[in-house]
Amino acid sequence: DAHKLLVLAGDGIGPEVMREVARIVHWMSAYRGLKLEITEELVGAASLAVHGVPIRDEVVELARQSDAVLFGSVGDPAWSHVGFDKRPEVAILKLRKELELFANLRPAKLFDALIDASALKPEVVRGLDLMIVRETVGGIYFGEPRGIETLPDGSRRGINTEVYTTSEIERVARVAFDLARKRDNRVCSVEKCNVMESGLLWKEVVTDVHKREYPDVQLSHMLADNCAMQLVRDPNQFDVIVTGNLFGDILSDLASMLTGSLGMLPSATLGPVRADGKRNALYEPIHGSAPDIAGKGIANPLAQILSFAMLLRYSLNRGEDADLIETAVSNVLASGLRTGDIMSSGMARVGTEMMGQAVLRE
Amino acid sequence: DAHKLLVLAGDGIGPEVMREVARIVHWMSAYRGLKLEITEELVGAASLAVHGVPIRDEVVELARQSDAVLFGSVGDPAWSHVGFDKRPEVAILKLRKELELFANLRPAKLFDALIDASALKPEVVRGLDLMIVRETVGGIYFGEPRGIETLPDGSRRGINTEVYTTSEIERVARVAFDLARKRDNRVCSVEKCNVMESGLLWKEVVTDVHKREYPDVQLSHMLADNCAMQLVRDPNQFDVIVTGNLFGDILSDLASMLTGSLGMLPSATLGPVRADGKRNALYEPIHGSAPDIAGKGIANPLAQILSFAMLLRYSLNRGEDADLIETAVSNVLASGLRTGDIMSSGMARVGTEMMGQAVLRE
Ligand SMILES: CC(C)[C@H](C(=O)O)[C@@H](O)C(=O)O
Ligand SMILES: CC(C)[C@H](C(=O)O)[C@@H](O)C(=O)O
Repeated sequence: DAHKLLVLAGDGIGPEVMREVARIVHWMSAYRGLKLEITEELVGAASLAVHGVPIRDEVVELARQSDAVLFGSVGDPAWSHVGFDKRPEVAILKLRKELELFANLRPAKLFDALIDASALKPEVVRGLDLMIVRETVGGIYFGEPRGIETLPDGSRRGINTEVYTTSEIERVARVAFDLARKRDNRVCSVEKCNVMESGLLWKEVVTDVHKREYPDVQLSHMLADNCAMQLVRDPNQFDVIVTGNLFGDILSDLASMLTGSLGMLPSATLGPVRADGKRNALYEPIHGSAPDIAGKGIANPLAQILSFAMLLRYSLNRGEDADLIETAVSNVLASGLRTGDIMSSGMARVGTEMMGQAVLRE
Repeated sequence: DAHKLLVLAGDGIGPEVMREVARIVHWMSAYRGLKLEITEELVGAASLAVHGVPIRDEVVELARQSDAVLFGSVGDPAWSHVGFDKRPEVAILKLRKELELFANLRPAKLFDALIDASALKPEVVRGLDLMIVRETVGGIYFGEPRGIETLPDGSRRGINTEVYTTSEIERVARVAFDLARKRDNRVCSVEKCNVMESGLLWKEVVTDVHKREYPDVQLSHMLADNCAMQLVRDPNQFDVIVTGNLFGDILSDLASMLTGSLGMLPSATLGPVRADGKRNALYEPIHGSAPDIAGKGIANPLAQILSFAMLLRYSLNRGEDADLIETAVSNVLASGLRTGDIMSSGMARVGTEMMGQAVLRE
């Protein structure tokens, strides 16, 4: 029986890069016996334009009932001056929250062939392979009270609340420790416990989980400001980093940029294990909707393609198919093809479609 | 009549590097007619050990009545498991809050002689000279409610609150715009308005101040996660960055590290203009107390020395004396002397004291 896949291409370059995944899906259906029941829906500005909301409740329900969600990207400058609830970004925030997708796995891995694309010196970035586990349904993104209030004198106050509970911290810490065991067995927990009590609790709970359940894993702690520095100074010191929603947002984008190939990096966001033993999961590239290059046919489709490979591996248990895709991507890079974002001298510049077809050929 | 200077060396390497400033003060008193009335006090772990508090109220009062405060650094792992109010860090937080030192100016400037010390490629970092203006008495560092509460089931909740008001945003924005006018006339305002209402208000208020008072300055806006990436990808795109307390903490440390010479960078934190036309101000290096190398005589004293130069320039109106110090530092670097943190091949490694004396000789 077929796996249920929900495809949400979203805004900007989302639909373009998703088209290249579609080619691969067709090929895998024909030659690898992949059976998918695919539903496509609008999210973000694309949904706002048609339905007046960034994501419809039916779409959230569809996502909940799918075996996996393949997400593109949301965001559109045209909607930046509309109300706070009409941000295209609400689509992804709502999916995370409603499906309880609490653990965002963001690998920052250097593709050796792309070492020249990094802003860092080769000797600093060579071999980089770290994983940031970011909590995604708690913290200041969702805490109440929040809002903007007008004071009697006409001035205003903007408020947001960072909240973390023991259980929220425990479950994301477990994801990080489990991952570390399959990697280099080291976790660095990042917070700002010297000025924030929520960070102090974070540190204590991670320490407890470690002591109780994962004494074999090496655990260290770092302040968020120091972590930003250390990621630039010597990123290879890290294996798995676990942190809250806001620090994770900033540090994972920073870590991705170290590789010089933002257009290459996939991510997975996992929910709790359900009664049927599976977990809800959403896969998306780390890059955004890139409105400046949307529609030009020059976006790099590899992050979206690699997100699909992650989906095959983690949600559909098709590791061999994932390997096929990842190897094809490596080969294409080795052959010298480059989209504009990862271009360097001596390489052949191609557009979105040619890059997608090259992967397919491999 | 003499200027009142309060010296708070603090913890770790603080006292060592401050000693090198003392030499320069003596020289300037003897040869440049500098008249200072200096008071020294304990802060941080040093004060905790003697007085049981990270900073005494008398010391805060002294700071308020001084023409300037020269601060070293606070922080000590020995105090990391004690209560939240007994963090050594409370000393600097309290000084900022009580003296209303709301604008932290953090230059990230590359010293050409040190370009090899950066983790970034020379072509990416060459010529770097940006300024981060960080708000330092508001935001999540100080917002209420805050704390850790125990729930009926024994689990816990950590809470912090981010609050920004119109006037808090306006005054720090003005500092940034004023600075930009003396530099490259460009300000980039950084927040996370796509998920935080406090960020939305931040963006709106900065936009208003710009329109009303600084239409001649170029203003742009950037999300904090994107800013972290852009700082790595192409830091030279920035002139002045203005942002809140928490983002400023992370982004300014990141920006400093880009230069590869954290041990070189000073900072100033300014309060509002007082009735007497002066403003309270505190000067401190960007680096921390570095407990790992404290007491070894190998710390780089240049950031502390350059902080004193900033103090001479901005609080005591002695630009020529500041120039003297800054030129001396340049010359010492050009002559090839290096402390361990900025060491590179072919240079001469020296300790704290020799570096300080070399500056004095120049
Ligand atoms: C689109 C936005 C709401 C989102 C976030 O801040 O979480 C994005 O930056 C991300 O990291 O996935
Ligand atoms: C010592 C600490 C409280 C402080 C901060 O977070 O503000 C430090 O990191 C800084 O940036 O000055």
